[in-house]
Amino acid sequence: MSTPPRRRPGGRNAAVRLAVAHAVLSYLEQGQPDFSVADVAARAGVHRATVYRRWPTRAALLGEALSLQYSRVTVPMTGDFVADLRTLSHRLAHYLAEPVLRTVNGMAIADSEPGFGALVNTHWEPVKQRMTEMIEAGIRNGQLRRDTDPDAIIRLLVGPLLMTPLFTQAGATQEQIDQTADAILRAFLARP
Amino acid sequence: MSTPPRRRPGGRNAAVRLAVAHAVLSYLEQGQPDFSVADVAARAGVHRATVYRRWPTRAALLGEALSLQYSRVTVPMTGDFVADLRTLSHRLAHYLAEPVLRTVNGMAIADSEPGFGALVNTHWEPVKQRMTEMIEAGIRNGQLRRDTDPDAIIRLLVGPLLMTPLFTQAGATQEQIDQTADAILRAFLARP
Repeated sequence: MSTPPRRRPGGRNAAVRLAVAHAVLSYLEQGQPDFSVADVAARAGVHRATVYRRWPTRAALLGEALSLQYSRVTVPMTGDFVADLRTLSHRLAHYLAEPVLRTVNGMAIADSEPGFGALVNTHWEPVKQRMTEMIEAGIRNGQLRRDTDPDAIIRLLVGPLLMTPLFTQAGATQEQIDQTADAILRAFLARP
Repeated sequence: MSTPPRRRPGGRNAAVRLAVAHAVLSYLEQGQPDFSVADVAARAGVHRATVYRRWPTRAALLGEALSLQYSRVTVPMTGDFVADLRTLSHRLAHYLAEPVLRTVNGMAIADSEPGFGALVNTHWEPVKQRMTEMIEAGIRNGQLRRDTDPDAIIRLLVGPLLMTPLFTQAGATQEQIDQTADAILRAFLARP
């Protein structure tokens, strides 16, 4: 009697991708962005030939890692802009202070890897799009001023929350996060 | 008849310091932070032994350059907070988009030079102090809410204006600068 082969359509592919992404993220988390394709294969426990075939360059590996990393930001959409902004501000602050993001942003800013800044912007774009939708919902339901530019709110939210972890070893404090959200609400609510 | 020696007390010293600071800034402006002490001496037109004696390390040279660079931000203090904030927002946006600052911030964030992040923070501190005084004057004269935390305004001003030049090749646009200042005024004026 032979055991029939276990069938996991897409399962093995997905598991390999996840293992590779996690291996790259672990290098970034340790502030070691100068890994090689072979390093990643070893750490992921995936055959080196497989990694070379599917992610032939460091850029491809970094793209796989950024896909996973940026998919982790979930933007709330409860229909109440005040609650959503407060939730988002805490999630973003936590997220932007992660060691992986510090390394990724440092690489993007220092432009140490050709094209990496553009790669980061590409992966940031869907997150920004979801935040824009959250803000547009607030304009539509009348909570936000009708002349609100979603980009202005995004810059006022992300800028301060990003600055602290970029220039210090710490993330924004709870008080700093709340001050940022409070100021945005006072500035943009239709009836503050 | 002999000409008496020209006396410039402090003049020669000051000229040498300025030449050295400008040479370092020119390397940073060109995105070449890996200059040597000898490179700077050559570019400044100062004897190499003088440079080695007075600025023995790259850190000392970078400190001299940052002193000059950060002294360029003048914080307005006319007594009208609204006018002062608008003036400051445009000056800061222009300043933060300078190529020198892009290199300096990239180095600080990537932590490529031991202790450089701390050096940048040290030189940024007096600028922040002057901004704090400008905001405190606005609280005292009743233009700003009495519960205003100067740090919150500084983060909301600098964060967005810094984010654009860090992640793109461009500085903040006039519209982005005005949106940032407008939002801060709506959020913090005592009677918006």
